[in-house]
Amino acid sequence: MCQLLGMNSLKPANLSFSLEGFLRRGGETDEHIDGWGLAYYEDCRCQLLIDEAAAARSAMARWVQQQHPERSRNIIAHIRKATRGAVRASNCHPFVRHFWGKEWAFAHNGTVAQDKLPRPQHFEPVGETDSELAFCLILDALQARFGDTQPALADLWVCLQSITAEIAAQGVFNFVLSDGEVLFAHRSTFLHYVERAYPFGSAHLLDCPIGIDFAQHNHLDDRMVIIATQPLTDEVWYPLPVGEVVVFSGGRRYDGSQGADLRLAI
Amino acid sequence: MCQLLGMNSLKPANLSFSLEGFLRRGGETDEHIDGWGLAYYEDCRCQLLIDEAAAARSAMARWVQQQHPERSRNIIAHIRKATRGAVRASNCHPFVRHFWGKEWAFAHNGTVAQDKLPRPQHFEPVGETDSELAFCLILDALQARFGDTQPALADLWVCLQSITAEIAAQGVFNFVLSDGEVLFAHRSTFLHYVERAYPFGSAHLLDCPIGIDFAQHNHLDDRMVIIATQPLTDEVWYPLPVGEVVVFSGGRRYDGSQGADLRLAI
Repeated sequence: MCQLLGMNSLKPANLSFSLEGFLRRGGETDEHIDGWGLAYYEDCRCQLLIDEAAAARSAMARWVQQQHPERSRNIIAHIRKATRGAVRASNCHPFVRHFWGKEWAFAHNGTVAQDKLPRPQHFEPVGETDSELAFCLILDALQARFGDTQPALADLWVCLQSITAEIAAQGVFNFVLSDGEVLFAHRSTFLHYVERAYPFGSAHLLDCPIGIDFAQHNHLDDRMVIIATQPLTDEVWYPLPVGEVVVFSGGRRYDGSQGADLRLAI
Repeated sequence: MCQLLGMNSLKPANLSFSLEGFLRRGGETDEHIDGWGLAYYEDCRCQLLIDEAAAARSAMARWVQQQHPERSRNIIAHIRKATRGAVRASNCHPFVRHFWGKEWAFAHNGTVAQDKLPRPQHFEPVGETDSELAFCLILDALQARFGDTQPALADLWVCLQSITAEIAAQGVFNFVLSDGEVLFAHRSTFLHYVERAYPFGSAHLLDCPIGIDFAQHNHLDDRMVIIATQPLTDEVWYPLPVGEVVVFSGGRRYDGSQGADLRLAI
């Protein structure tokens, strides 16, 4: 299996505190040693870093942590324990595709029965994983439903829910997906989220003795959501509802009441 | 304007010597300070690194040079001096798209008249540059001609030549393009290449006092081609023919005699 990490923030933010704990699960505090990857957005461009080395021992991971600000509104990270496909770069998550003039990033935890899924018509996998196949099927479904025209978020959400249910029926399908603006998440088994907003508290990582006082590092109007397979800190993390595609936008959970015609504009 | 660097190698190789000189042109020995990017292939997966900082002062560039082996058979790098589009990540080359189950990387030097080019039908630009638009038009033309079926290299070459001529008629269109297996290059104004094979000699960079004895770093059967806007070393560099798409495969210039049915299989 694998572990997932996602962030959706109202303003560009730094994920390094959460990432510090998360990457240790890639060979230090947990067994996810078969590669890792990180996708973050700089304006509308998705920067994807993938490495087949264990995250806890990866030179790329050390560099990301030490040097790189990753000031982004949406971030997806993944540490891999191979269940389908060899340990190599082409099988590392996240996967990225261009669609509707944007870059879409996707990472998956779980296994879906590849032989029970249809072949995608338009978006093609490069590697061997069930995960990349599922991502291609999601984009295929969106294209089949909406063509080249980007729909309102509410309509997109309904279509995502439908294709996700079809794929999730064939196995375990926890995922995070982003177009650089909004972050979608789906839980089959394990996926949690925490909201950070004013008044900011403090937190300690569960994987190493590091703490942070968020009030020192945030403005009053900052707001973000962190999604992870298993909680990363001693804050209150909520499990996502099983079998439902959840939308995070502007650093909080989106429930449709913020306007059904909200478009996914950057 | 910008500068281009490309490598096509028979076996996975390290570009760090050439890259050392090249990246200095991004703000130290030349004026290309508006971002830089590097695309290299690990098995069939394209790793793309982009940074809007000047290459000569980029933390990402230092890390790539110091830490990262970049053992790859095809590499494309670019340093940018903005002529079209703002200085931001979405306008940094190389650009990458998925097509025929592969990842295609492209970088451009020059300017083509965006308003005289058609809108692409299928592949859509994310940023504002004429370069990404031209790349999308190339892939559009390949898809219109061959659909979802990858043709023989000889047929692909003919189609590339034709769409390239159309775009090059609207400006200056020096580019390097790769699918991870083969590297294509086109010169409108400036583009040179050097071949390195047995018997290996030595070379000195033109941008800094660093030399190398390739015989110490290569096996007898290693073979590679380096493509650059302007020569990087004191070796013999050949200018590419103007207005012709040149193919590099297996670390040497491909002239069609190696088999017209050579397919672009990874």
